[in-house]
Amino acid sequence: MTVAPPSGRRSIDVHPAWLPAEVFRAIGSRRVLVSGDGLLVDTVHAETRTACARFGGSVTRLSIDGDADLLLALTGSTRADLDGDLGDEGYTLGRAGGRTTVTADAPVGLLYGLFHVARLGESAFHGDIATQVHRPAIRRRMLDHWDNVDVHPVMGQVERGYAGGSIFWRDGAITDDLDRVRAYARLLAASGVNALTINNVNVGRTEARLLTDRLADVATFADIFRPYGIRMHLCVTFAAPMVLGGLATADPHDEAVRDWWAATTAQVYRAVPDFGGYVVKADSEGQPGPFAYGRSHADGANLLADALAPHGGVVHWRAFVYNHRRDWRDRSTDRARAAYDHFAPLDGQFRDNAIVQVKYGPVDFQPREPVSPVIAAMPATRLAVELQVTQEYTGQQRHVCYLAPLWSEILGFRFDGDSLEADGDADRDLGASVAAIAARGGTLAAVSNVGDDPFWCGHPLAQANLYAFGRLGWDPTADPAALLDEWIDLTFPAGSVSDPVQLRQTLHAIMDDSWRTYERYTAPLGVGWMVNPSDHYGPAVDGYEYSQWGTYHFADRDGVGVDRTRATGTGYAGQYPKPWSDVYESLADCPDELLLFFHHVPYGHVLHSGSTVIQHIYDTHFAGADEAVAMRDRWRDVADAGLDPALYARVADRLDEQVRSAREWRDQINTYFFRKSGVPDALGRRIH
Amino acid sequence: MTVAPPSGRRSIDVHPAWLPAEVFRAIGSRRVLVSGDGLLVDTVHAETRTACARFGGSVTRLSIDGDADLLLALTGSTRADLDGDLGDEGYTLGRAGGRTTVTADAPVGLLYGLFHVARLGESAFHGDIATQVHRPAIRRRMLDHWDNVDVHPVMGQVERGYAGGSIFWRDGAITDDLDRVRAYARLLAASGVNALTINNVNVGRTEARLLTDRLADVATFADIFRPYGIRMHLCVTFAAPMVLGGLATADPHDEAVRDWWAATTAQVYRAVPDFGGYVVKADSEGQPGPFAYGRSHADGANLLADALAPHGGVVHWRAFVYNHRRDWRDRSTDRARAAYDHFAPLDGQFRDNAIVQVKYGPVDFQPREPVSPVIAAMPATRLAVELQVTQEYTGQQRHVCYLAPLWSEILGFRFDGDSLEADGDADRDLGASVAAIAARGGTLAAVSNVGDDPFWCGHPLAQANLYAFGRLGWDPTADPAALLDEWIDLTFPAGSVSDPVQLRQTLHAIMDDSWRTYERYTAPLGVGWMVNPSDHYGPAVDGYEYSQWGTYHFADRDGVGVDRTRATGTGYAGQYPKPWSDVYESLADCPDELLLFFHHVPYGHVLHSGSTVIQHIYDTHFAGADEAVAMRDRWRDVADAGLDPALYARVADRLDEQVRSAREWRDQINTYFFRKSGVPDALGRRIH
Repeated sequence: MTVAPPSGRRSIDVHPAWLPAEVFRAIGSRRVLVSGDGLLVDTVHAETRTACARFGGSVTRLSIDGDADLLLALTGSTRADLDGDLGDEGYTLGRAGGRTTVTADAPVGLLYGLFHVARLGESAFHGDIATQVHRPAIRRRMLDHWDNVDVHPVMGQVERGYAGGSIFWRDGAITDDLDRVRAYARLLAASGVNALTINNVNVGRTEARLLTDRLADVATFADIFRPYGIRMHLCVTFAAPMVLGGLATADPHDEAVRDWWAATTAQVYRAVPDFGGYVVKADSEGQPGPFAYGRSHADGANLLADALAPHGGVVHWRAFVYNHRRDWRDRSTDRARAAYDHFAPLDGQFRDNAIVQVKYGPVDFQPREPVSPVIAAMPATRLAVELQVTQEYTGQQRHVCYLAPLWSEILGFRFDGDSLEADGDADRDLGASVAAIAARGGTLAAVSNVGDDPFWCGHPLAQANLYAFGRLGWDPTADPAALLDEWIDLTFPAGSVSDPVQLRQTLHAIMDDSWRTYERYTAPLGVGWMVNPSDHYGPAVDGYEYSQWGTYHFADRDGVGVDRTRATGTGYAGQYPKPWSDVYESLADCPDELLLFFHHVPYGHVLHSGSTVIQHIYDTHFAGADEAVAMRDRWRDVADAGLDPALYARVADRLDEQVRSAREWRDQINTYFFRKSGVPDALGRRIH
Repeated sequence: MTVAPPSGRRSIDVHPAWLPAEVFRAIGSRRVLVSGDGLLVDTVHAETRTACARFGGSVTRLSIDGDADLLLALTGSTRADLDGDLGDEGYTLGRAGGRTTVTADAPVGLLYGLFHVARLGESAFHGDIATQVHRPAIRRRMLDHWDNVDVHPVMGQVERGYAGGSIFWRDGAITDDLDRVRAYARLLAASGVNALTINNVNVGRTEARLLTDRLADVATFADIFRPYGIRMHLCVTFAAPMVLGGLATADPHDEAVRDWWAATTAQVYRAVPDFGGYVVKADSEGQPGPFAYGRSHADGANLLADALAPHGGVVHWRAFVYNHRRDWRDRSTDRARAAYDHFAPLDGQFRDNAIVQVKYGPVDFQPREPVSPVIAAMPATRLAVELQVTQEYTGQQRHVCYLAPLWSEILGFRFDGDSLEADGDADRDLGASVAAIAARGGTLAAVSNVGDDPFWCGHPLAQANLYAFGRLGWDPTADPAALLDEWIDLTFPAGSVSDPVQLRQTLHAIMDDSWRTYERYTAPLGVGWMVNPSDHYGPAVDGYEYSQWGTYHFADRDGVGVDRTRATGTGYAGQYPKPWSDVYESLADCPDELLLFFHHVPYGHVLHSGSTVIQHIYDTHFAGADEAVAMRDRWRDVADAGLDPALYARVADRLDEQVRSAREWRDQINTYFFRKSGVPDALGRRIH
């Protein structure tokens, strides 16, 4: 399996991910009509033409009246026969009279419709299908690459990248493998992603110049992604007027600074007319920001928003702001409070094209965190919710950890207390859910897990995370198991494996619960951060305990956990609206999985599950490590299933490492807590 | 203060350390006769000529009968008037009839005699001095540089270097500042060092080539060090026959391998006729070695010894061999045992020119370890004892830590139980002391603390460690406080500071006890390793606790320490001869400072001091951190003493860091043990 014949030098052995040629067999073996004009319709035309050339079908691009099995037609206007506007990206899909029809108001909708038909395969061409209307729930599905142009001495070519080098940059220069980038654009479009950043939010000296004298690089990539409906955004440094413009200040109230941003932005739009906008990490972990001038984050964000507004661009301004030089001795402050404390008071002060981008949890992408209270705290501000596809704290693509269930929980979390269950009903009222807030704000963002690895993501099964992210952005109510089915069907088409049913069962058995498995063998009950500080891989129970990072568990011989109540703790629980402020405040009501995030409790504290905290730690760690073994063993079931041998071997190798690592987690965590608590395991298992 | 006028580009602002021009005032203002021939006599001549040119004296190099205040005369033969042979490096020093006379049998003795006169200063030229005989107690005083030719991606230009880059290498090439190297040679000779390695024992690809096609670099350095009586040794990789010679094996029993080493070594001696020999780290921390071929370390060492023997060279074969991929769960093995277990059975199997180089302690340069039992276990083998001048685990030249008291304790340690006290009596019987064994074997080795820092060592006061190392090699019974006086007198000559008495008092108050101060605020009672694994700086109590390195403290809620007894532990205590095997075995007799190295005890265990273990931890950590504050404050006493402002400021800056770091150690260690033990401080001090 390879991508379409590449002209570059490195694509030859790249895995096709969820777009092997086979996916287009059903379309490619039929008579297709493509109707409409524009770049994106050209893409649809090219896609179908390639498929038909391979599988014996035919494509006509003339009218909508030819004799055809599939009609892909741009209507060019809003139609009265539909329930509302199809919007910029929506499409209809239906089948009647032996013809499958996709229509869209705007060209990119036609492309999304085409990929929908591809997902359906043969079933798109049998019987009748009542016309369905599909629109994305969230306007912008943005993938952020933390790729560095120059290799960073500590972080490397891709910060928190676990899939090799960058597909965009190599040693300071633009990649010479643009075919790979093209293949990536196609994959992203098929998953629903429509916005992209190609450089790290930590903007170095070279990276800063993408905004000015290296703008041609951005334009090159924009030209590649444009035919797939993906707009280019750029991470910029707040200090750009000084670093690039030679000004003495970057103060947002300074006239020269405002002028510089206006002129610079106009220049960007001359090079990239459909440029999406800026992404900024300011006053965070050493990045410059408005605080240096006594200005607020709203001042900072609005400065860039004003420069972008004339051109229709937006600024994504990250809320990941906290003091990263904390004194561990100081228990009066709490990093979890920081984003809310910084941003909630600014609600209503941001321009309409300034989007505050909030990590899903209050701290930093731990396997289990409560949903960030900032998301509920800024009703008068557009928000982006930021997820992390790259598995920084969730096994670094050496562990299988299917993240869609985690994201589904987050997106379905309702601040009014009535959590949304994933049911695949896109029309369901999102209410006060996180997804609804992201839909209102306009962006679901995530950090990419892609590198120049032949399997894109290091771990072949981690492709499912990338796929599911895009699909959840389109429909946050989608069922993670159903998305996994989609991904399996596309990635391992029925004809390419000997026993598709067995493969599907095996992958579900390995992946469905893998996030909770990972949670079981790592830090318990939501406390987080028991990870090696150097690389965020593998256990170090006290690794962050006496550090500057504000990430502590406070385990002593009597108990463990962080008191974040209003009554006796940091008061963080009070940042939530009711009922959650009360639920989290209450030791009796707090969900088990977040207990140690909100409360410091004795080891003998009895959970809702009926177990004590200490016995829960032992039980889940033994169970989690056993489940890793079971995952590895299950993979052997498909050793003869006809999978690409390189893929099979890669997954097998990584599962071996997962088993080793899970055992290490189990033993270190259990030993640590046994040494501290002195409480023996009720089942008498071996603790070292 | 600068070194003698340099021609290189970087020496201008280099601190002269213990050889400012002023040191030679007494000599340089007198009439000097230099008698004898040879390179080293030329050096003596040049040194005196430079001094006299500066201070108005005169030098004659003709006969021994001129009218002179100082005669430096090579006798060229053994003389009956002396108590035994002066040896290769000995000299006599006396004064009568208004003339100070230094004689030596061999040229380098004359140079050492000259530096002795320089140390004496004016007092060398007043009254009569009965003729003294001086000979080094230990034949070889070798300084090992862990400098890399290429910058290592992790370890940098100098592994465990805390004084900037290498003075020998820069980015893969030989330095362009050979004047600096010359100044270093002179400093080393004045301290007594007579052997040197200029590359890391971890030998990389580029470094390996110093043995063959980059031999010219070695010859360049040999030419610089030769006039100062210092012989060049080279760290080589055991795999050299494969890496450099293209052979398929490095098996010591293979004829082609033996031939390769013989031919290669002959070539080395053609380039460097007085080449000292090889230093090898084999089968250790990933370096290749004889184990790969089922051969012993004696086989490996003898291979190189045989190649060196025809030329008079020696191989130093390091005993630092242990399994660095341990499973922390496995309590049946013990890294402390490793060197003895590997080497003691080989006693008697090594060639006479193979020297087994043993780190002073059984693990790795911790601030407090027992003396390595290997040193007593190989009576039929020549041993080198290895110290560490670079402060890897003792504050990295950011902390003041005068190490001569530690080394003095080690060198004076007697395996027969009667420890040698430092009293400066060089004629005293060293008995079964470590110094005596090193003297018999022939080498005291140490890792250097020098880099291209203007103060040579990062911390100006760390120069005293380098100086004291050489002097202790010459006379292991020297009193550390007296050596400090020597260093102070040389480094800060009376005329250069406003109040020499106050400066001396201040430096003694800061430095004399600084090693024990460091011990107090770091890991307690000999347990070691509570340090950051990444850089070995700053506290991480559990940093090594679940690692592969074999360095554990086993602290739990009840107690702490490693049971290394024969009765119930790893049996390490049994590696010592009596009485130490019994002393360490006994909980009652084990010295407090090593208690946790040998025993796991409850926190309430009462020490010989009368304190409990837990209260001792609290008390020493509060005391140590307070002492760091006192050190910093004392330095301010000499703010107006006329010191070089850059030196004053550098020391002041580092003392600030020491205070900060000592407080961090105090708080983390105390908090860790309070959380684990639950025992409050008897004095009610603040523990976090």
